[in-house]
Parts: sequence; structure tokens; C-alpha cells
Amino acid sequence: MGIKVYGSDYPITPNVMRVLAAVYEKELEFDYVPLDMKSGAHKQMPYLSLNPFGQVPALEDGDIKLFESRAITRYIANEYENKGTQLLTKDTKKMALVEVWVEVEALHFDPVAIKLGWELVYKKIFDMEPDMAVVEENKAKLAKVLDVFEARLTQLKYLAGEAFSLADLNHLPIVHYLMNSQVKQLFEERPNVSAWCKDILSRPSWIKVVTLHEKLKG
Amino acid sequence: MGIKVYGSDYPITPNVMRVLAAVYEKELEFDYVPLDMKSGAHKQMPYLSLNPFGQVPALEDGDIKLFESRAITRYIANEYENKGTQLLTKDTKKMALVEVWVEVEALHFDPVAIKLGWELVYKKIFDMEPDMAVVEENKAKLAKVLDVFEARLTQLKYLAGEAFSLADLNHLPIVHYLMNSQVKQLFEERPNVSAWCKDILSRPSWIKVVTLHEKLKG
Repeated sequence: MGIKVYGSDYPITPNVMRVLAAVYEKELEFDYVPLDMKSGAHKQMPYLSLNPFGQVPALEDGDIKLFESRAITRYIANEYENKGTQLLTKDTKKMALVEVWVEVEALHFDPVAIKLGWELVYKKIFDMEPDMAVVEENKAKLAKVLDVFEARLTQLKYLAGEAFSLADLNHLPIVHYLMNSQVKQLFEERPNVSAWCKDILSRPSWIKVVTLHEKLKG
Repeated sequence: MGIKVYGSDYPITPNVMRVLAAVYEKELEFDYVPLDMKSGAHKQMPYLSLNPFGQVPALEDGDIKLFESRAITRYIANEYENKGTQLLTKDTKKMALVEVWVEVEALHFDPVAIKLGWELVYKKIFDMEPDMAVVEENKAKLAKVLDVFEARLTQLKYLAGEAFSLADLNHLPIVHYLMNSQVKQLFEERPNVSAWCKDILSRPSWIKVVTLHEKLKG
């Protein structure tokens, strides 16, 4: 009864990659269970008993069953606090800053970045044309979010302080995808954002996620 | 240097009410600082030093400055764990379920419910007509989310277990607004969702939020 991460077959979605990054940061043994997305395995039982919304990822760890990628990364960070990288802190005041930037990722960065990822990266995989009006609208929005990040990263090495935390980790999948797209420029023209991207993308945990992804491509 | 909650003048937005509910649950002394939203006080310094995204709410607690309502409610729950209602648990497995349902509120319930709140409640306050196409689309989406809640609340009294938690608290503002709109029916026709709404809306903390709101109406 080890850890099972349920996710998509190729391509692995950003939300699933977020969980994989956390599992690798904590150096945990786990099995990756890819669902057959084309046949809709995530919309049917038995998967719906793991996630009633029929989305990936989900996690099983012994008798615990969880869904929602950010709830899962937080669980892993808490439950395995003494393994691998420390992603949280017991200091409630420092932890509050981690919380703020975890929320910023989920509510400011992701809603814009995921649309760009869909238009510029995913549609290419599925041989579809991007909607350039959606791209332009969301590029402008992303630029504003990255201005806030640039100001923040001028003061601190990572979003929540001087150490890598759950707040940075949760950004990894979409930063990875967008750094492989035409939107890369938005990150690179902001020196502190650019340095942060290079730093977090070069973490051994992230390289393992990319390696697993390539392996699934077959 | 007590607690200061920065929010909107009348009407108090749902995100601000979420923070107020947490402060009242913890029986904390605080000052409410209403910003002049019409003149755009939230988009200017000095407020931008509290929240670089220029949105309400923000919190000051001594030397700590936070934004994002769900980061603030979590901070309050953690920092003041020994005061008022327990909103979190130290058991990482039980806590993981709180995390899941905190995410469900932020990523499944709120995006749909806030659109309905805007069309059916806020537009009325500002003497505007609702866009009924947006209402119908989001009513259908909310019904699906509430089906998942109904199944969950058939098994448990609250979303994350047998005790009221941060996951329930975070839902309060929008449940309150929608129960005072034509969408009320979606909640009432699901018996377990209906009982849960009645239960959480009758909490003394929530009644204090509504009272403060009425007072600001003047």
C-alpha cells in the first residue's frame, strides 16, 4: 500500500506534474497510474470514487484518498515534513507568506497562464491552431502578474522568502510549459523573474518530472 | 498594534466577508478599515504596499501584512489556534481533507458562484440589469457542483468531516449572497446542502458579519 499518483497518459497535465514535483522533492517511492484520457477513464467509476469532479490528479496513500493538486502537494509537504526538501515552515508568520503566494499562484498566475499553455503548447500537441485573440489578451494579463513577481523577487530569492517553498513549487509546471513557448520573452525580459525560473526549473525534482513525461511519450 | 482588516466600504465584498467570518470565529479584537472603492483607494498607494494586486481584503497583524482572503483565513486559523473555534486540525490525514475542500471552494464553487452573485445580487445594488445568459450558464454549472456537495454531505455533517472547519467557513459569503437570490432553489432542493447552509449561516460569527455589513450601509 504505497503512494499512487493517478494522472493523465501523455501528455501529463500541469496539475498532475505539480503533484509529481512534490513527490520527487520529498524523495518518496510511488507508482504513477496513467489514465486513458481519450476513452474518458477519468469520467467513470472507479476513478470517480477518487475524484467526484472527474479530473486528474488524485492520490492514494494507504487509506487516504485525495484530489485537487494543491491540496495534494500541501498534504505531501505536511505528512512527509522530515523527508527531502522542507516546503513549509512551522513559523506561522513565515508560513503566512507561503500561503499568500500559494494563493497568488492559484488565483492570479494559473488562470492566465493555463490559457496561454492551452493555446500555445497543448493545441500544438493535438495539431490545433491557437486563437491569437485569446493569446494576446492573456499575454497582457500575464505581463501585469509578472510585474508583481519581478518586484517581489527583487527583494527575495523566492516568492515567500529566501528558501524554495511550496509557493514556488506549485508554479513549476506552467512555468516549464510557457518557457517552451513564444511567451518565454515575458519571463526573460524581467531579470529577477528570469533568474527565478532558471533556478526552479533546474531543480533535480523537476528534471525527474520532465524525464518521466518523456518516457510516457514512448 | 492590533489586527486591522482592510476591506471595501458598502457593500462589503465576499472576499472581505470571508476574513471577517474568521476573525469573529476566533473572537479576536480588530479594527475594520473600509476603503473608498469609488475613488479607487485600493488601486493606489499606500494600499498597494499591502496588496500589490490592488484588491481587498488585506490584513495587518503587528508587523505582518497579508493579502488573499484564503491565505488570511488560514493564517488566522493557525496563528490563533487556541482561541475561539478550531478551524484546522493537527492530524495531517484529517487536515488533508480540509485542504481538499478548501481547494474545491476556491476552484470549483467560487468561480461559478461569484458570477451568479455578481449578476443577481451586486448588479441590483448598483441598479444594473443581470445578463440572463450568464445566469443560466452558471446555474447549470453550480447545479453540478452542488450535486457533488450533496453526495458528500450525505456522508458527513460538514465538508471535511463531522466538525465545522476552514473549508465550510470559506464558503459562507457566497452561500449567504446566493441564498438571498433566485438561485436559492438550487441549494434548497438538495436536502443535505440545504441543512448545511442553514447550519453555517446561523453561526454567531456569521450573524456578526451580517450585522457589521448592515451598519456600514448606514
